Amino acid sequence: MFTVIAERINMTRKSINRMVRNRDAEAIAAEARRQAEAGATHIDINAGGNPATEVEDMKWLTETVAGAIELPITFDSPNPDALRAGLEICNRPGTIINSITCEAERIKEVLPLMTKFNASVIALTMDDEGMPEDVEGRVRIIEDLVKLFGESDVALDRVHFDPLVRPTSTNPGQACDLMEAIRYIRRSHPEAHVALGLSNISFGLPQRGLLNRTFLAMLVAAGVDGAIIDPTDSDMMRTLLASRAVLGLDEFSLEYITAKREGRLG
Amino acid sequence: MFTVIAERINMTRKSINRMVRNRDAEAIAAEARRQAEAGATHIDINAGGNPATEVEDMKWLTETVAGAIELPITFDSPNPDALRAGLEICNRPGTIINSITCEAERIKEVLPLMTKFNASVIALTMDDEGMPEDVEGRVRIIEDLVKLFGESDVALDRVHFDPLVRPTSTNPGQACDLMEAIRYIRRSHPEAHVALGLSNISFGLPQRGLLNRTFLAMLVAAGVDGAIIDPTDSDMMRTLLASRAVLGLDEFSLEYITAKREGRLG
Repeated sequence: MFTVIAERINMTRKSINRMVRNRDAEAIAAEARRQAEAGATHIDINAGGNPATEVEDMKWLTETVAGAIELPITFDSPNPDALRAGLEICNRPGTIINSITCEAERIKEVLPLMTKFNASVIALTMDDEGMPEDVEGRVRIIEDLVKLFGESDVALDRVHFDPLVRPTSTNPGQACDLMEAIRYIRRSHPEAHVALGLSNISFGLPQRGLLNRTFLAMLVAAGVDGAIIDPTDSDMMRTLLASRAVLGLDEFSLEYITAKREGRLG
Repeated sequence: MFTVIAERINMTRKSINRMVRNRDAEAIAAEARRQAEAGATHIDINAGGNPATEVEDMKWLTETVAGAIELPITFDSPNPDALRAGLEICNRPGTIINSITCEAERIKEVLPLMTKFNASVIALTMDDEGMPEDVEGRVRIIEDLVKLFGESDVALDRVHFDPLVRPTSTNPGQACDLMEAIRYIRRSHPEAHVALGLSNISFGLPQRGLLNRTFLAMLVAAGVDGAIIDPTDSDMMRTLLASRAVLGLDEFSLEYITAKREGRLG
């Protein structure tokens, strides 16, 4: 089972921003349905268009998306009030808070929401000193977070670690350190998940889709079991299906063969 | 630098077999040139169509291919006489013998050719007991081969290990053991190379090209620096370029950006 967090409903995108400002419920519902049909397991909602209206926008988006599909939602905001507003409206099993870090302020704000709503969480390898680039720094924050979750009785199967992808154009070789950190998580905390926003890898380079899906294959091999992606990108979804078939994660390649029969392999 | 061993000139393929039987030098030369232009670093020649004429066919193929392109050749045969016949005609720097194993008979036949012609070699993880599927068995044969090469003063930078891909359809999860063996080679013998025939992974499944190139991305991340592939498969070559860019193996992503400018990224 791979967690496909569908990224398209994000108010930092112009088209979505306009739909929300116009309260165009049908257009947002169509976006949600299209992502669900394409294979999303979660619909991410980011209402970060206008800070002054974010809480209201999150409420409206949550109502609209929850009315359109039956999947759990991933609430995506730096603003705890926006997270809470969404969680109060729709808290289906599997709901994810995007995200917590190891920053003191962020812990104080988000951990209570996790325990109150019994939600899962995306946990970024970031603390008050920054975002480490080396394996050791990432591992240190992962262990700090594991300790924190243990103290709050948060089972690690509710945690999706994201060890934060850097662009290969500005940080060449970072992908190797990242995969080393992922293998560390898999080895040391097998019950935890690893779910990444991966498109940062291709920042500044042409043909980003090709780089992103090539990277996805490597990440799945390293042990990633979730990603924040656009499920309507059929090349990306084909690479995901092929990755799981190659690695024997897709038993008897059944998902892969079914996708072929349904014409989803192109 | 990635070793692209171009696999198309193989007499077990019907079209090539016919060209060789007809001594159609222009058709074979065109195949060789097309693979060279597509990015091959080596042209593999397999004359294994008819055992009775293999040595003669290897000679003719070697003369024809060597006349058409300037790349080194990979001589691909279980028959040491065919290997020798090819090596005597064309032994450019970088020439590869495909292949040696740890079988006593094979060592006796191929090791003298390696030392006499100072050629590189593809070394399969196979011995008289078979082809091990587990990491330990592969590692044992790799160490036996390393010892053997050391005793014959063969530097490991002339060796391309091939830890033998199994089909995911019949051996699910084998890809993980294979990659573990590759990481072992990278760690323990960094001067050696790893070059694989990878298409076996997709045996028995649909859309084999998709599975093969997805697997290539994983293999490059695991440390493979060569593959026996069809360089005229542009999706495969794009995945190779993207893999090296993502991993920072392609400095400043220059090969990738150049490929984009030349229209090779599609």
